Amino acid sequence: MTTTSEHPDPRVPVALLGLGPMGHALSAAFLAAGHPVTVWNRTPGKAAGLVARGATAAGSVAQAVRAGRVVVVCLRDDKAVRAAVVPADADWTGRVLVNLTSGEPAQAREMARWAAGRGAGYLDGAVLTPTPTIGTPAAAVLYSGSGEVFAAVRETMAALGGTAAYVGDDPGTAAGYEVALLDVFATAVNGVVHAFALASAEGIAPQRFAAFATGIGGLLPEMITRFGEQLAAGRFPGDRSTIASAAAGIGHVVNAAAGHGIDTGMLTAARRTVDRAVAQGHGADGLARLAEVLRRGGPSVPERPAVSSG
Amino acid sequence: MTTTSEHPDPRVPVALLGLGPMGHALSAAFLAAGHPVTVWNRTPGKAAGLVARGATAAGSVAQAVRAGRVVVVCLRDDKAVRAAVVPADADWTGRVLVNLTSGEPAQAREMARWAAGRGAGYLDGAVLTPTPTIGTPAAAVLYSGSGEVFAAVRETMAALGGTAAYVGDDPGTAAGYEVALLDVFATAVNGVVHAFALASAEGIAPQRFAAFATGIGGLLPEMITRFGEQLAAGRFPGDRSTIASAAAGIGHVVNAAAGHGIDTGMLTAARRTVDRAVAQGHGADGLARLAEVLRRGGPSVPERPAVSSG
Repeated sequence: MTTTSEHPDPRVPVALLGLGPMGHALSAAFLAAGHPVTVWNRTPGKAAGLVARGATAAGSVAQAVRAGRVVVVCLRDDKAVRAAVVPADADWTGRVLVNLTSGEPAQAREMARWAAGRGAGYLDGAVLTPTPTIGTPAAAVLYSGSGEVFAAVRETMAALGGTAAYVGDDPGTAAGYEVALLDVFATAVNGVVHAFALASAEGIAPQRFAAFATGIGGLLPEMITRFGEQLAAGRFPGDRSTIASAAAGIGHVVNAAAGHGIDTGMLTAARRTVDRAVAQGHGADGLARLAEVLRRGGPSVPERPAVSSG
Repeated sequence: MTTTSEHPDPRVPVALLGLGPMGHALSAAFLAAGHPVTVWNRTPGKAAGLVARGATAAGSVAQAVRAGRVVVVCLRDDKAVRAAVVPADADWTGRVLVNLTSGEPAQAREMARWAAGRGAGYLDGAVLTPTPTIGTPAAAVLYSGSGEVFAAVRETMAALGGTAAYVGDDPGTAAGYEVALLDVFATAVNGVVHAFALASAEGIAPQRFAAFATGIGGLLPEMITRFGEQLAAGRFPGDRSTIASAAAGIGHVVNAAAGHGIDTGMLTAARRTVDRAVAQGHGADGLARLAEVLRRGGPSVPERPAVSSG
């Protein structure tokens, strides 16, 4: 259910809690779309530029919640969200809390329960694109929570531009996407820097290595699509590369890195999963099978020498 | 020094040791280019198809080495290479051993020493592309070792098609590229399957997750190029994302995965590196700095609860 709206309703008053770089960009987008915008930040002095463009600075969370029908929260983390909204003596009746703070699915579900107890609607959102995209066609935000609540605020949230995708009525689902996407990104980044470190130790200049490594990076989108299809079908053909061959390859990388004193923690952790898949009889399967092995857990395998525990 | 040759010399006799899928494809490419080809495999019965196309089956390594001026070795691993060539009573004088077996830089250097002691030239090669590319313009093979030896065999090796890149006179460099590229691939693959497992635990269907994750995967080539430039320049601007923000993000993923009982070994290993970078004062730097931190090692940080050792 990817939706965009051609008809935002600029009369809906919006409150923004949190004026870090993302909160600031969100506020500016609502202002640009013509909404009355009230802003609050824990430490003062962040609102001046927005006030000059028509926003109202609230002195308290309660005052901001009173002014906004849609209350968008974008703070550092869940702890900051709870510190801001839970103790505040605010009347949330009839408000919709849209929580765009980065966090975890369990935190989103807990905030949804809290909001329900205060008479507020709740949507959890995950902003997938960087701050400069907000208010442009490049923005992408996922929302989860009550479908009725999403329908009620989608025209207002359209001020953020780009794509607004409603991903389900479990309030934790948007954060579920967010953490899983971050999983792909964080792991790949850490693998890339590890590979640069290993290449450097082997006397290979960074830009020469990059010229070849971009080709490997470019394989990922097709591979992700293929893995998604295989996981949906529950079939894992080993015609391209098998789990058994991955085990051998990882062993080469571990040995080469260890020979240079470069940390092998990620690789030995990956090898434990691969070894477990082989021990479960999946050595001839394709690599997507590893997702099932990770999901289901099951019998582990004895550690190899120099393999970290955990 | 990327080279292709328009003028292969089909008179050069070639011997192939190892007839697994890649060895078979290599043999077929030399045959197709008109070379006299002699093949050997540890276990018999793999040569029939090649013999039907004009190859000669050798009964021993010594016989194959006698027949070939260029002796291409493509076996399962370094152990298999040593088992095949070291005990064999072969006269290597004037031969060039081109070792295309996947392995580690130290193994390549050791084989180069061995070959020198037997009066043979030595090149180590890393085949970067899958078996079906061999003999086509899509093939890509890296070579390292003596530049004179590479010059002497490049026309012969041109039978493999595509790109032949000479990457330096240290015989270990081709394997250095190979392990570092495998590092990127293996880590990314294991991160992708982990993310699918996490998404599945959050109730997100594989193909719905894939539709978003391909966007993340598509960021890698540009990021790798940028990291290469930053590492070459020794400057790590934090204008896109910082090491400190990566630490927070990884924490969310670890918590979400642990909540579902999904292994967090790779992520906690990544977090140890990120934490070490922060402890060394690099929290505000961009992520490419992590390669320097991994390369240089240096002070580690206390482990967090539930973080694996290693």
